[in-house]
Amino acid sequence: MSAVNVNIGKESDFGKESMSEKAFDWQQLDITIAGLQRHYKQGDFTPSELVAFLCQQDQEDVNNIWIERLSPEQLAPYVSALNLREAESLPLFGVPFAVKDNIDLGGIDTTAACEAFRYTAAKDATVVARLIAAGAIPMGKTNMDQFATGLVGARSPWGEGKNAFNSEYISGGSSSGSAVATAKGLVSFALGTDTAGSGRVPAAFNNLIGLKPSRGLLSCEGVVPACKSLDCVSVFALTVDDANTVLAAAEGFDEGDCYSRANPFDNSARSYGAITEPQTVAIPLPEQLAFFGDEQAEQLFHQAVGQFKALGHQVIEVDVEPLLTAAKLLYEGPWVAERYLATEALFEQSPEAMLPVIQTIIGGGSKPTAADGFKAMYKLQACRQRADTLIKSFDALLMPTAPTCYTIEQVNQDPITLNSQIGTYTNFVNLLDMAAIAVPAGFLPSGVGFGVTLLGPAFSDRYLLSLANQYCQQVKLPLGATGCALADSQLKQSVASDTVELVVCGAHLTGMPLNWQLTERGAIKLREDKTSDNYRLFAMSDGRPALVRDESGAISRMDAGEGESQSILVEVWQIAKSELGSFVAAIPAPLGIGKVELADGGWYTSFIAESRAINGAKEITQLGGWRAYQSELAVS
Amino acid sequence: MSAVNVNIGKESDFGKESMSEKAFDWQQLDITIAGLQRHYKQGDFTPSELVAFLCQQDQEDVNNIWIERLSPEQLAPYVSALNLREAESLPLFGVPFAVKDNIDLGGIDTTAACEAFRYTAAKDATVVARLIAAGAIPMGKTNMDQFATGLVGARSPWGEGKNAFNSEYISGGSSSGSAVATAKGLVSFALGTDTAGSGRVPAAFNNLIGLKPSRGLLSCEGVVPACKSLDCVSVFALTVDDANTVLAAAEGFDEGDCYSRANPFDNSARSYGAITEPQTVAIPLPEQLAFFGDEQAEQLFHQAVGQFKALGHQVIEVDVEPLLTAAKLLYEGPWVAERYLATEALFEQSPEAMLPVIQTIIGGGSKPTAADGFKAMYKLQACRQRADTLIKSFDALLMPTAPTCYTIEQVNQDPITLNSQIGTYTNFVNLLDMAAIAVPAGFLPSGVGFGVTLLGPAFSDRYLLSLANQYCQQVKLPLGATGCALADSQLKQSVASDTVELVVCGAHLTGMPLNWQLTERGAIKLREDKTSDNYRLFAMSDGRPALVRDESGAISRMDAGEGESQSILVEVWQIAKSELGSFVAAIPAPLGIGKVELADGGWYTSFIAESRAINGAKEITQLGGWRAYQSELAVS
Repeated sequence: MSAVNVNIGKESDFGKESMSEKAFDWQQLDITIAGLQRHYKQGDFTPSELVAFLCQQDQEDVNNIWIERLSPEQLAPYVSALNLREAESLPLFGVPFAVKDNIDLGGIDTTAACEAFRYTAAKDATVVARLIAAGAIPMGKTNMDQFATGLVGARSPWGEGKNAFNSEYISGGSSSGSAVATAKGLVSFALGTDTAGSGRVPAAFNNLIGLKPSRGLLSCEGVVPACKSLDCVSVFALTVDDANTVLAAAEGFDEGDCYSRANPFDNSARSYGAITEPQTVAIPLPEQLAFFGDEQAEQLFHQAVGQFKALGHQVIEVDVEPLLTAAKLLYEGPWVAERYLATEALFEQSPEAMLPVIQTIIGGGSKPTAADGFKAMYKLQACRQRADTLIKSFDALLMPTAPTCYTIEQVNQDPITLNSQIGTYTNFVNLLDMAAIAVPAGFLPSGVGFGVTLLGPAFSDRYLLSLANQYCQQVKLPLGATGCALADSQLKQSVASDTVELVVCGAHLTGMPLNWQLTERGAIKLREDKTSDNYRLFAMSDGRPALVRDESGAISRMDAGEGESQSILVEVWQIAKSELGSFVAAIPAPLGIGKVELADGGWYTSFIAESRAINGAKEITQLGGWRAYQSELAVS
Repeated sequence: MSAVNVNIGKESDFGKESMSEKAFDWQQLDITIAGLQRHYKQGDFTPSELVAFLCQQDQEDVNNIWIERLSPEQLAPYVSALNLREAESLPLFGVPFAVKDNIDLGGIDTTAACEAFRYTAAKDATVVARLIAAGAIPMGKTNMDQFATGLVGARSPWGEGKNAFNSEYISGGSSSGSAVATAKGLVSFALGTDTAGSGRVPAAFNNLIGLKPSRGLLSCEGVVPACKSLDCVSVFALTVDDANTVLAAAEGFDEGDCYSRANPFDNSARSYGAITEPQTVAIPLPEQLAFFGDEQAEQLFHQAVGQFKALGHQVIEVDVEPLLTAAKLLYEGPWVAERYLATEALFEQSPEAMLPVIQTIIGGGSKPTAADGFKAMYKLQACRQRADTLIKSFDALLMPTAPTCYTIEQVNQDPITLNSQIGTYTNFVNLLDMAAIAVPAGFLPSGVGFGVTLLGPAFSDRYLLSLANQYCQQVKLPLGATGCALADSQLKQSVASDTVELVVCGAHLTGMPLNWQLTERGAIKLREDKTSDNYRLFAMSDGRPALVRDESGAISRMDAGEGESQSILVEVWQIAKSELGSFVAAIPAPLGIGKVELADGGWYTSFIAESRAINGAKEITQLGGWRAYQSELAVS
């Protein structure tokens, strides 16, 4: 790349006048998104200065990170477009990022790591455009396994991706350059793609967060397909907070990508939060864990499991056979035909333009028949049905991200087998429509990173991020290969559960006439319980109960005798929030659903009553509950 | 078939003693499910007698209905298994039905209309087993287009299916025998299968209800696959009530079918009901309607559209291009490879065992590559994404079931083209994961039936049945070819909407601080409105409003001044029930969601308050609403 030109952007645009006169000590740079926001707020430097500094770093590119690094001239327009007054409104204001070279950056060539495939992108891919609109600055296009076919990072004419911690070792791939650029602090985050693990494996080996969002959450418009029906754009970041910020800026339904899906409310940006309750975290059965002889990796995995236990979560072992079976389908099955389709013209005209290993793999995609394809899809569907049942048995699944990490030499000597081993815990994820987030879990003796992945069903992204964040905050590993420490996360709200505990006190109690309204909605009885001492219970003239809070005794003045508040027997049911609405809508006046205080002092979603409910009602507080009243009625 | 043996089942099991001594006049037979229930209750006849009677009917089988009709000896065990005491608890007690011969009936041969494919079913298909467990009696296996490949009914070695109204005309297919058996009243209902329209087209031509449920709602375990990824078991019935009853008995998640799906609560049996409000019914753009020159069919379609208008529904024209594009993919695309897969062994060993037309079609399935398959799936996915958007713009889509009906001779002369034309409005439905119900819409000059189909997204089955029932009750066509009239439907409840109108009166009003809690859940403001004159409004000490019903003036006695009830300004928002639950769960005490009376006298889901809400609150009733109070606060 060209020598660095110091004149990046127009300084005048960046409120230089508001800055401290003292030159910034770049040793103090915190390149996380939250860190940059603080730097800009403090006037430590401008985006222009940051970009100039970053352009000077790592010019020799010893890790083979870049296919094209943007020159200061190419960067200038992005920097100039930023207006310091927007620093607080743009979530990615002045945040540098890298783009894997199978994702279009307008005006720059896309190669997918194949010279013969090279074309100049007419415009930004949708995700890139959204990030730039949010203030982010694209620093360049990164190296990758050719046509994103590989998990090693060693399959590129631009040189083997070298691990950020030990250059003898693979970076992991296919998103090799994006991972290493992030790990080395050359960018705050980077975009990868992930079909079989390309956004997670290099995160693990380089001590990073690797977010593989639900399929369709990030648009693939402007992305060179690998397996178009499975591809996801992925995010490498130094912290989980950053990954969430990037996801929020980049996500959104896009008609330009036929696999794009609208993000449901439960998975919106708002639902990323603090985990405050114990979760059920599943791990594979011991015999299903493979580390290919890497005992340190095995030890690190169990150490991570221990951390989740230490956080108070319930760790359970589950049979992940449907997942492992699905994983085998990816490369043995017909999905490689999608890779062939994506490169068909090139493959048919000049297959020699591809690396031999890529040529072999992609060439295999021309062979299977549609009948083979359907046969494999039936097998996948059977796995998927079993996996869907399995997934309901836990909140999140914890697995190693990759079983072990190899040297570049090892991989070059046995490129297919070792690549396949590395994908043990990643290949099935997109086939089964799951979301995944890879998080650092320590370092192997070679110095390279080892990671674990949290997995859940489609659109559990924000929940998984929340759990990942809790884990990372507990472990407090340094960030990537930057040596920086992880700052405390400032999450303002707790993560929302998709179920709610509902207190019932009358005809919805077990065995009572309306209990079916709970059971038909899949609600589960959790326990019998009682309210705090502040309640009175009335039998309304329509035969329904009214549970009334009467701390001050105010009610006795107006109606229905002189009962004294006490605790009332109730039942607590767990119901999906998605089912609660129809339940609420069906309740006739004067009852409704609000909050009631139970004996533990907590406030629970519960039946409540309007004040008029007690007009003409019979006080039955002294019986202590609706069941006793019903028994009395039955006797009399 | 053999001569009828009068001794079917053990009479003693059937409480003959409770029956009238007078012989039943079979001219009075009402063979609908509801009709049979009445007959059994009245003691008109026993299941044994009904079965004996039915066995004697139509022995010459002029329409080529049966591949195997069960003999009285074969029927006896089913009849004997029925216990008259269960007549009221079994939803299908003593109800005769027919089974398409690609669905297993234990102990009986399955042929899929191909002698060389014949095998004896070891056990009942899941749906058949469920129906028998619910009291139904399988009368035989019905004729069909070979391997369910066809929409005409003329592709069977067992003879061409002849229309119940005019034997020169096709029955429609592939479920030809099941449809004609139902139309002629030889059974109360019948099972078909429907991949491209085989459960709907013959319903239309024979004046029947043809329910094509959501994919996976009825198990395909024990069903010979056509296109396994798309196949549905379908139901032919004389009335919509009957179709709903059969669906309820037959549906259910089945691990034995990898495409089986659990039925969500909103689509449970309980949600079939009366349509009480105007719906938005879409029809294709005029230029998208094709009748292939059949003006009477065109007229009947517009007559049906007029009936929906007469029922008060809003009829809108929509561009159904994504549906028509998807339809073309079914036979042009790689899905025929699934048909090849399902019959591969036979096709490879003795293709001559298939009818020439079937051999030609299925043979085509061996050719496409997996890459061709994925290419078509991308096209389908693009259609599906556009279709999903389109589907959100209406409650149901109304289309002709088939554009016209042909004679058997016409079809035999041009079997491929005419078959393809008949599928114009049916081919896309399973590809796009929609539910459909075909209903009768009158008769063509040839005497054969013409039908229309109501379509909606997956799991809209019960809603579509509800709308179909309303239409059928309006049109009151005779049932099938039985000459019987349609009885009035007795639906106890109104069909549930998936949205609810929510009344807000405070910080959730447009422009107020918590309004985002509505908008982020996709809620839409419907209107400004006001409560009835019975409400008072208070500003609680925590700054929130409490809307309190005070018809009797009881509240003034206890607190907060002597305000008089009046009407209060509110807003009405439409919110999905699935989103309402999380909204309710987030409301702090002492507020909640119950019901409030608006000025129109209707009761709406709304914020309500516990009685203690007004303790220490400021009465602001006289200001007429929260907005006025906020303005006053802002000024002061």
